[in-house]
Amino acid sequence: MDNFRFYSPTKFIFGKDTEQEVGALAKEFGAQKLLVHYGGGSVVRSGLLERVRKSLRTAALDYVELGGVKPNPEDTLVYEGIKLCLKEKVDFILAVGGGSAIDSAKAIGLGACYEGDFWDFYAGRSRARKTLPVATILTIAAAGSEGSESSVITKTDGMYKRGYSDDLIRPVFSILNPALTQTLPAYQTAAGSADIMAHIFERYFTNTGNVETTDRLCEGLLLSMLREVPKVLADPDDYDARANIMWAGTVAHNNIVGVGREQDWCSHALEHELSALYGVTHGAGLAVVFPAWMKYTMKHDVMRFAQLAVRVFGCEMDFFNPERTALKGIARLEQFWHACGLPVRMEEIGGKKEDIPYLVEHLELDGATRGSFVPVGADEAADIYELMFAD
Amino acid sequence: MDNFRFYSPTKFIFGKDTEQEVGALAKEFGAQKLLVHYGGGSVVRSGLLERVRKSLRTAALDYVELGGVKPNPEDTLVYEGIKLCLKEKVDFILAVGGGSAIDSAKAIGLGACYEGDFWDFYAGRSRARKTLPVATILTIAAAGSEGSESSVITKTDGMYKRGYSDDLIRPVFSILNPALTQTLPAYQTAAGSADIMAHIFERYFTNTGNVETTDRLCEGLLLSMLREVPKVLADPDDYDARANIMWAGTVAHNNIVGVGREQDWCSHALEHELSALYGVTHGAGLAVVFPAWMKYTMKHDVMRFAQLAVRVFGCEMDFFNPERTALKGIARLEQFWHACGLPVRMEEIGGKKEDIPYLVEHLELDGATRGSFVPVGADEAADIYELMFAD
Repeated sequence: MDNFRFYSPTKFIFGKDTEQEVGALAKEFGAQKLLVHYGGGSVVRSGLLERVRKSLRTAALDYVELGGVKPNPEDTLVYEGIKLCLKEKVDFILAVGGGSAIDSAKAIGLGACYEGDFWDFYAGRSRARKTLPVATILTIAAAGSEGSESSVITKTDGMYKRGYSDDLIRPVFSILNPALTQTLPAYQTAAGSADIMAHIFERYFTNTGNVETTDRLCEGLLLSMLREVPKVLADPDDYDARANIMWAGTVAHNNIVGVGREQDWCSHALEHELSALYGVTHGAGLAVVFPAWMKYTMKHDVMRFAQLAVRVFGCEMDFFNPERTALKGIARLEQFWHACGLPVRMEEIGGKKEDIPYLVEHLELDGATRGSFVPVGADEAADIYELMFAD
Repeated sequence: MDNFRFYSPTKFIFGKDTEQEVGALAKEFGAQKLLVHYGGGSVVRSGLLERVRKSLRTAALDYVELGGVKPNPEDTLVYEGIKLCLKEKVDFILAVGGGSAIDSAKAIGLGACYEGDFWDFYAGRSRARKTLPVATILTIAAAGSEGSESSVITKTDGMYKRGYSDDLIRPVFSILNPALTQTLPAYQTAAGSADIMAHIFERYFTNTGNVETTDRLCEGLLLSMLREVPKVLADPDDYDARANIMWAGTVAHNNIVGVGREQDWCSHALEHELSALYGVTHGAGLAVVFPAWMKYTMKHDVMRFAQLAVRVFGCEMDFFNPERTALKGIARLEQFWHACGLPVRMEEIGGKKEDIPYLVEHLELDGATRGSFVPVGADEAADIYELMFAD
């Protein structure tokens, strides 16, 4: 096991009606003037935003609002948020929504405390020293940003997606009410679940040996997802299943199951290009990428894939042909995602083989590689994109 | 799933040689004058205490020392520590050792910030508002106190063991170097492992339905323990196995796998009396208590026991006689602990049947019950103690 540091100081408030506590909590964390940051439609339509406003008013807290966050949140809105924070002397940001609203809020928090351009952090040119505190009210179990140290923003000039990671930007508190996810369309629920599973896979496939405790924790989360996701797709109002998925989504990405081991993250990079080019939902894109990535990298460590197949996908071990077991596990993953209504092939998201050179070029590898389980350069990336198409 | 709050702001620094960072870390957390609190022998003999002193001096930090913590730490040393903190104007406590040193440090931290008697908190007469920050350097994987919100102290007047739980007393940082545990005697390693497994069982046996995510996380930790503990008993220098156990011990008790579900904790109460009367190591006592408690409560929810037997102990499900499966799981647990060199029957720790009335009386139930999976009153406690003896 590798040496590591783990610091997750986010306070989680989990359960029914917990969004009503947001005003009191923000006050407890020292907020005086908040920026309430959100997307649009559902947060307003469901009455959630109104309940948040009421709770803030009850706590005698002042606030301004900035809506309009879109999936794959963009730098333009971040700049707008930073300007608003400075003008209104905001000292606390509350994101209401999913990963996009939260990631955008994290970027605004950083930018509001920095003389230069917030993009410096995402471009890897600078490390942050300060941020406005960010809190969240989560409305979809997916990105894990409610407990994570990371944020991903898209630069509209060129549509480059870049991330910044720092314990500094972990939310100070996150309100997780599974009931708020009950109104999600089935496709969004499924895509969010694929995102959660992908976060686990990115950690699971590692070259670090002897990491049984985190292996088992990762497998436990995956097993729970395999059981709970079909339940919510069959009955969107299954609160307990929603709750199990929501907590799994947080634990999958706050990194307690990923410490002490090399992680991969190549598939996320490959997916970002699919979202950018085809507008596919991130989680659905991951359902296309991962099976292909797995088939491509499988031979690098067949036994790790066989372990996943046996322990998580209930395959019987073929002791004389572990590769067969490994492949069966990948096939079961595809079947699971398909049964959830997700795409698992490029054709299903409008992908075209002739786009591969563009996708690879846009990865901006510049001779470098992505991922660590198997380092993926331009040639390998092209091969993996190729594997995403039906034979 | 029940509503819950989860707040674990401890910074974990995990891996080889990490104890050398203690001075810099304490400084980062604002320490100026420390109390270094420890047990005795091994911390001194191994040179660890000397390395700690050196690191503190290098960071130009002032410190005083208080050794002498014993297993089942006592209030008398806590009072001494409080007095020392006040006299020396200590502003930070560093516990070097296992659960006893850490629990004692937590009590001292509370007492040093409180006008009244620190025992008020442990007796349930008051809630704490302030504490001195406590940090830890862990030397045994067992109690989980390095990441937990709890502390257990024994009142020497009557030998009553009582606990206090509060997020306030979670350590600010914990240094976990698995190599420090390599010199432990096999029996202590095994007893520590049983303590870790017991912390999982206390959470696992619940009346809260539909808690698949935390069930799976608990099972994952147990599966890892079943694989890793025999490895360290066979080869005490197996660093990776030590590391897997150490992280499992922290995760088992910082409560991330226990949230949203009723927990039991009756077995810990029953064991405290065994430690008090027979001087048995806490973890070894738990190895005696748990099988008996399981046999006694099994019929309350046979399917939960069958689930444990199948998922963790690799038993085949007897669909027409789940009770048989459940019993097989308990038998395998006993075999596992016995193979680790731990006792699983009263006779092995010098227990006598005629002591049962004393043990029960000393539980101080006063008509109340312990545990929640199955509430245990005086009669039930007597029955469970009875089951701890060989037939």
